[in-house]
Amino acid sequence: MSAYFEKLDRVGFEGPQSDNPLAFRHYDAGRIILGKTMAEHLRFGVCYWHNFCWNGVDVFGAPTFERPWHEAGDALERARQKADVAFEFIGKLGAQYYTFHDIDVAPEGGSQREYLQNFQAMTEYLGEKQQATGIGLLWGTANLFSHPRYAAGAATNPDPSVFACAANQVFHALNATRYLGGANYVMWGGREGYETLLNTDLRQEREQLGRFMQMVVEHKHKIGFSGTLLIEPKPQEPTKHQYDYDTAAVFGFLKQYGLEKEIKVNIEANHATLSGHSFHHEVATAISLGIFGSLDANRGDPQLGWDTDQFPNSVEEMTLIMYEILKSGGFSSGGLNFDAKLRRQSVDKYDLFHGHIGAMDTCALALEKAAGLIENDRLSEFVCKRYAGWSRPLGKAILEGEKSLADLAELALEQELAPRHSSGGQEYLENILNKIIYG
Amino acid sequence: MSAYFEKLDRVGFEGPQSDNPLAFRHYDAGRIILGKTMAEHLRFGVCYWHNFCWNGVDVFGAPTFERPWHEAGDALERARQKADVAFEFIGKLGAQYYTFHDIDVAPEGGSQREYLQNFQAMTEYLGEKQQATGIGLLWGTANLFSHPRYAAGAATNPDPSVFACAANQVFHALNATRYLGGANYVMWGGREGYETLLNTDLRQEREQLGRFMQMVVEHKHKIGFSGTLLIEPKPQEPTKHQYDYDTAAVFGFLKQYGLEKEIKVNIEANHATLSGHSFHHEVATAISLGIFGSLDANRGDPQLGWDTDQFPNSVEEMTLIMYEILKSGGFSSGGLNFDAKLRRQSVDKYDLFHGHIGAMDTCALALEKAAGLIENDRLSEFVCKRYAGWSRPLGKAILEGEKSLADLAELALEQELAPRHSSGGQEYLENILNKIIYG
Amino acid sequence: MSAYFEKLDRVGFEGPQSDNPLAFRHYDAGRIILGKTMAEHLRFGVCYWHNFCWNGVDVFGAPTFERPWHEAGDALERARQKADVAFEFIGKLGAQYYTFHDIDVAPEGGSQREYLQNFQAMTEYLGEKQQATGIGLLWGTANLFSHPRYAAGAATNPDPSVFACAANQVFHALNATRYLGGANYVMWGGREGYETLLNTDLRQEREQLGRFMQMVVEHKHKIGFSGTLLIEPKPQEPTKHQYDYDTAAVFGFLKQYGLEKEIKVNIEANHATLSGHSFHHEVATAISLGIFGSLDANRGDPQLGWDTDQFPNSVEEMTLIMYEILKSGGFSSGGLNFDAKLRRQSVDKYDLFHGHIGAMDTCALALEKAAGLIENDRLSEFVCKRYAGWSRPLGKAILEGEKSLADLAELALEQELAPRHSSGGQEYLENILNKIIYG
Amino acid sequence: MSAYFEKLDRVGFEGPQSDNPLAFRHYDAGRIILGKTMAEHLRFGVCYWHNFCWNGVDVFGAPTFERPWHEAGDALERARQKADVAFEFIGKLGAQYYTFHDIDVAPEGGSQREYLQNFQAMTEYLGEKQQATGIGLLWGTANLFSHPRYAAGAATNPDPSVFACAANQVFHALNATRYLGGANYVMWGGREGYETLLNTDLRQEREQLGRFMQMVVEHKHKIGFSGTLLIEPKPQEPTKHQYDYDTAAVFGFLKQYGLEKEIKVNIEANHATLSGHSFHHEVATAISLGIFGSLDANRGDPQLGWDTDQFPNSVEEMTLIMYEILKSGGFSSGGLNFDAKLRRQSVDKYDLFHGHIGAMDTCALALEKAAGLIENDRLSEFVCKRYAGWSRPLGKAILEGEKSLADLAELALEQELAPRHSSGGQEYLENILNKIIYG
Ligand SMILES: [Co+2]
Ligand SMILES: [Co+2]
Ligand SMILES: [Co+2]
Ligand SMILES: [Co+2]
Ligand SMILES: [Co+2]
Ligand SMILES: [Co+2]
Ligand SMILES: [Co+2]
Ligand SMILES: [Co+2]
Repeated sequence: MSAYFEKLDRVGFEGPQSDNPLAFRHYDAGRIILGKTMAEHLRFGVCYWHNFCWNGVDVFGAPTFERPWHEAGDALERARQKADVAFEFIGKLGAQYYTFHDIDVAPEGGSQREYLQNFQAMTEYLGEKQQATGIGLLWGTANLFSHPRYAAGAATNPDPSVFACAANQVFHALNATRYLGGANYVMWGGREGYETLLNTDLRQEREQLGRFMQMVVEHKHKIGFSGTLLIEPKPQEPTKHQYDYDTAAVFGFLKQYGLEKEIKVNIEANHATLSGHSFHHEVATAISLGIFGSLDANRGDPQLGWDTDQFPNSVEEMTLIMYEILKSGGFSSGGLNFDAKLRRQSVDKYDLFHGHIGAMDTCALALEKAAGLIENDRLSEFVCKRYAGWSRPLGKAILEGEKSLADLAELALEQELAPRHSSGGQEYLENILNKIIYG
Repeated sequence: MSAYFEKLDRVGFEGPQSDNPLAFRHYDAGRIILGKTMAEHLRFGVCYWHNFCWNGVDVFGAPTFERPWHEAGDALERARQKADVAFEFIGKLGAQYYTFHDIDVAPEGGSQREYLQNFQAMTEYLGEKQQATGIGLLWGTANLFSHPRYAAGAATNPDPSVFACAANQVFHALNATRYLGGANYVMWGGREGYETLLNTDLRQEREQLGRFMQMVVEHKHKIGFSGTLLIEPKPQEPTKHQYDYDTAAVFGFLKQYGLEKEIKVNIEANHATLSGHSFHHEVATAISLGIFGSLDANRGDPQLGWDTDQFPNSVEEMTLIMYEILKSGGFSSGGLNFDAKLRRQSVDKYDLFHGHIGAMDTCALALEKAAGLIENDRLSEFVCKRYAGWSRPLGKAILEGEKSLADLAELALEQELAPRHSSGGQEYLENILNKIIYG
Repeated sequence: MSAYFEKLDRVGFEGPQSDNPLAFRHYDAGRIILGKTMAEHLRFGVCYWHNFCWNGVDVFGAPTFERPWHEAGDALERARQKADVAFEFIGKLGAQYYTFHDIDVAPEGGSQREYLQNFQAMTEYLGEKQQATGIGLLWGTANLFSHPRYAAGAATNPDPSVFACAANQVFHALNATRYLGGANYVMWGGREGYETLLNTDLRQEREQLGRFMQMVVEHKHKIGFSGTLLIEPKPQEPTKHQYDYDTAAVFGFLKQYGLEKEIKVNIEANHATLSGHSFHHEVATAISLGIFGSLDANRGDPQLGWDTDQFPNSVEEMTLIMYEILKSGGFSSGGLNFDAKLRRQSVDKYDLFHGHIGAMDTCALALEKAAGLIENDRLSEFVCKRYAGWSRPLGKAILEGEKSLADLAELALEQELAPRHSSGGQEYLENILNKIIYG
Repeated sequence: MSAYFEKLDRVGFEGPQSDNPLAFRHYDAGRIILGKTMAEHLRFGVCYWHNFCWNGVDVFGAPTFERPWHEAGDALERARQKADVAFEFIGKLGAQYYTFHDIDVAPEGGSQREYLQNFQAMTEYLGEKQQATGIGLLWGTANLFSHPRYAAGAATNPDPSVFACAANQVFHALNATRYLGGANYVMWGGREGYETLLNTDLRQEREQLGRFMQMVVEHKHKIGFSGTLLIEPKPQEPTKHQYDYDTAAVFGFLKQYGLEKEIKVNIEANHATLSGHSFHHEVATAISLGIFGSLDANRGDPQLGWDTDQFPNSVEEMTLIMYEILKSGGFSSGGLNFDAKLRRQSVDKYDLFHGHIGAMDTCALALEKAAGLIENDRLSEFVCKRYAGWSRPLGKAILEGEKSLADLAELALEQELAPRHSSGGQEYLENILNKIIYG
């Protein structure tokens, strides 16, 4: 097999001054930051679907990308060709991980059995590619939304036999993920939501989804998969409303079904903003609830109401994300996946490199800045001082449950409490942050 | 005391044909619908603050309303005058309930003690007004967001002595609500959120809020308050982000602190839409989670990003709400409060009547239409048929936990499942709905 | 050719009581309202593309509709079969008009010449179908956004030869529209906008678009097309930002290129709301600027940020639209097109009828209600009284340019003007409106 | 008069390394960039209202700021005290300009005459302060939205005598601006819009606004004011919909009333984003239309739907703005005003400095980066190449009007045009940009 990206062998690190658009200027995989290499911190993942399955089609227009493996031909042959290019790309890019849906990597086939045969054949092939390249699997997942049978949802479908088909896919995708040494397994609720409440039984569908997730957890333990299970929240699209709307909604769902110790969240930047929250909010919330797992760092467009899945390019935004993650101890099994796609106009095959290089440099810079914040953490210092009262007797007594409403009412009256508000320091803190980002 | 609204004695029901703008055309309090009177179904509440405390000021302009009780004078005297007008209004309108914050009804005073004295004096006065008029209290609440001490939150304030002041207010507001026979007590998290994550400890603030809510529950039981405790979700404003963002977020919070059997939600239409959900979604979700309590029926403007608190006027929207509520058995302690305010340009004092009459007629019509939906419930029929598979052996076995992922995978393969999607019928159902609404 | 919709011959009018889901309950084509038949007022159009070209595919999933004419086969043969079904459908529905893009009706072919041959063949075929059925063409248009050559726009493409291809299509589509007796010709700027300002020259692209529109106007006059030229504003999607963002933007553009007497707007409900305006606003604005042309009545979903193109079902909303149009004298060449598509889950072929019947009944009811508003126009009466001062000497003198700023300053000071605001009556007017809508 | 900000004399430039929060790290007024000093490029303005008139009140809460000049006392005395502090602040900050509304600087008084007397007295006082400090006036304006008389608009009010009051204020505010050597005069349409279309005559109100603007232009020429007239677009708030919605809407309005050579736009970042556009879009659009005037650089919050008026802190965003402005030749009479306010929690008086210092450093850095972009303008180079075809014969012939639709159709067919799309290079260009911003 000859190279598809014949123009380059490997994206090298050339430092900030470099004018080579096909080199890293900030991502230096082996550089040590706070005791770990950049690669160990960032754990970059490249997604299979947007990069190698999507052909540039959108709702208003025909495909614009011309990739040889999209041409007609033997389906398994094309799938292997696609895998070859994918691993060539990821290898040349120097990312450590990839991520896939079952039917990204294998032809869907015309029956359950054909699906399984194809998927097993390709799972083996992927295993060989991993072996040959050293690239690992950040997570696998099953596509439970593209086939017409899933038009009304997978686990939440009104028809239990659709549920069973979904179970079949997840069973095999989770097994394959374990076989390929995946660090995580992700569930994204594609069409687990509704188009109209007029035909929907919310309680029923929630029960179905709850049971489905429990089954996945049970299977994970049964097969001894040691990775982390993740749910990826998204508020809507293609549905009108998805049950996994945001981190807070997922947390309530996990608590209801006793799953909050078993499943964490994979937060996507664009899904966060579509749900009305900042990316920063979703990450900080997940960490504060103990359910943070992994990231899809692809951003949206602030003016658009759908998932544009663009490569991250804001160091300002990513610095806050990396700061939260570093403060919480860094990724454990999670990583930084780019569930991002090229713009439909970016038809040059090397645009795939431009997108990923820019994204990785953005994240590397953000890591560097976040480490700067941590090293002399004036933000945390401010926060500690601000809440200091809660480490003093009154605060402690309240939080430890030693005070009743009546106790505090008496205290307020007897001591004629008249606390004065002191500055929240927002502008000051924003300046501190910019000092670290911009020097 | 002479009448303030001298032009009318009582808003009467005159039927659909009436051209009298100061009469009801649809709300006929005693009319029986599905076995209960309209009044028993709808349980209308009039809010004290927007109607009698607000003077027409907005962020860009001075007061436009000229109300005698806003003029200078002895504070308690003005408070009684305001109460007189409020009860005159509600009585003439024929609503059964009112709702208030502590400092809507009593002067705040310059100290905790003065606050208490004023509030207790006015609580007695309100008791007399209730006695004299037969008007009841739908719910009371405490204003924990207007005083400068609450600039950084009440229960979530970085300063525990602010927490204690908040406790003092809730202690007395809950006691007063009990004294006045309130059917519910509401907590709205005004500034329980953040302006910037840079100065905020999410986990710490959540703990504080959890403990606060637990204290309120404990106090409720101690004093034997038989009403329902409610949280009113709102996503933001005045904060950037409020912890009680939406029903799903509140549910997760309640589960975390073991409060899901103790506290329900008071859903406001405008807060629902600001959080990215339809009003219908929030009500249906709360019902499906078993935490539906009460309504603030005031709507927003679909094009505006802040809480406009307009009177409900869409029968199309309110019919779906009443349909959900009727299906769930109707309000128990909750009711239909109008947390609505006049437009700032509506300076005629009788505009208060136009706003409420329109709102009550809208809700009465919606009740009538919703009852029509229930009586021959083609929507539910469709939904039942749609999910019928879940009452058959496979569906039941799945939901009862008798099937593992492996079982279902095997089933899918062995039976070569190939379920076909059948129409979700959305357009058909929308037509059914319109037939009921428009005849 | 045998019938595709074998289940019914014609959608009849059966009146409000009917429970037949395949009958009109409000649209009674021949019924006279304010001196014209409902059909003359409403001028319904059915769009070709969503109904007969779309197969249920969305960005996340495969086709769900199974239509025989989407199967493989001779392209022109399939096109004729599609036309047969389309005219069968429209005829049975009883709509007067249809609307199409060039490549909806004819196979695109592999070259400019093949395109032309196919399109001319199908234009003749459509002419025969019109002849045979009495169905007319509300408007034609050219698809300048689906072909990969248009990825960066058509008239605004950086490459002039793409501009020439676009010119070719519009030349033939306008000629065909004239040949088929079309009442209007529409231009929708599909990709006439940008994805990123980084690669865009706004001034250059605007010049190109201006010249393109002028060329279309010149050609229209040259061939003696007597219909109206229309631009359909849309703010974004698939682009990040479209030049024809909203009615106000189009007006400025038309003024700049001297086209404001030549081109009007085709307003789509969903495009209005995506641009941050109410549908009512866009229609009222276009009328007030003298550029209102026609409607695409398909609505969006208030919670979703993309063009969902749903059938209109809100009588409340459509009544205001019909009220504006009736006040302005009714449609001239324009009409009420449904640029609406079924939900992807609505896979029953009769769902096409449910969608259109509901939409047409909604519009018919709205027409009826709007006529009620007009007949005893208390809204206009209120408005007249409100602005009465502008018909008195001071108001007239100001508007006729007889007063300078200095004159008015002097007047204000000398007369010590202290005008008092009087109620805007919003709640009162909302009640008046609801009285007409709901009786 | 003693200093209010006793803690510092002057905000100095200390360079990037400085840890002094009350020093500039990037804004070095005299530093030369592309041939002009930073001060000459940036022309910073400090607004009077948010900084010195606002007391921290919001819709949900009482004032939090304790400023001596907000205490009771003689109104003119307080106004002078406020002016003293304002000029002390601006002087110590080292901004060159300030901006004001008439009633920010002078007590409104109880009558037209009292208004005038106060305003004239304070205008003289401001003149003396300017003299003494060297601070100039970037622009003046009149507040036509706070007084209750303006509840239904100023120039668009249904009552012509309100129009006359507005004329009086603008007459004197424009005269005062001329007296004080203002570089511009701004008109912001506060309530020039509607709350509900039900009571609004759009055409009538537009005529009123058109005539008003013409009168202002006539007066400007009469008094020989050499500054620029500016309109500040804003989409809504406090109104539901403002006529000056965005730059495109203002352009259409100016064209309609023949004012496009007389009035330019003052673009506010937060207003841009509230109108659904990026700040970058609004600036680039205004420049491309030849109506760019000045900036209010205050940003919004991406998750909030109202005007939060925050200090700019994104170098990434401001770099694009400065790049557009530099490419267009830089500001002429306009400048960079901060129509920004502290967060309500920022109650420390030095927070005023933190807000402005952060903002000015952000803009200075953005200028520096934008100059870097210009110096080796790979973005412009890419754009030039992309549109090169329009400088070749076909492109030129089209734009010069030498080709008809028929000509191009013939060309497309005869030459069998089949243009191929080439990459838009978005990811590549985003990387180029980040290289300049981050080194
Ligand atoms: Co996504
Ligand atoms: Co993702
Ligand atoms: Co509210
Ligand atoms: Co409320
Ligand atoms: Co559309
Ligand atoms: Co359309
Ligand atoms: Co603003
Ligand atoms: Co401004």
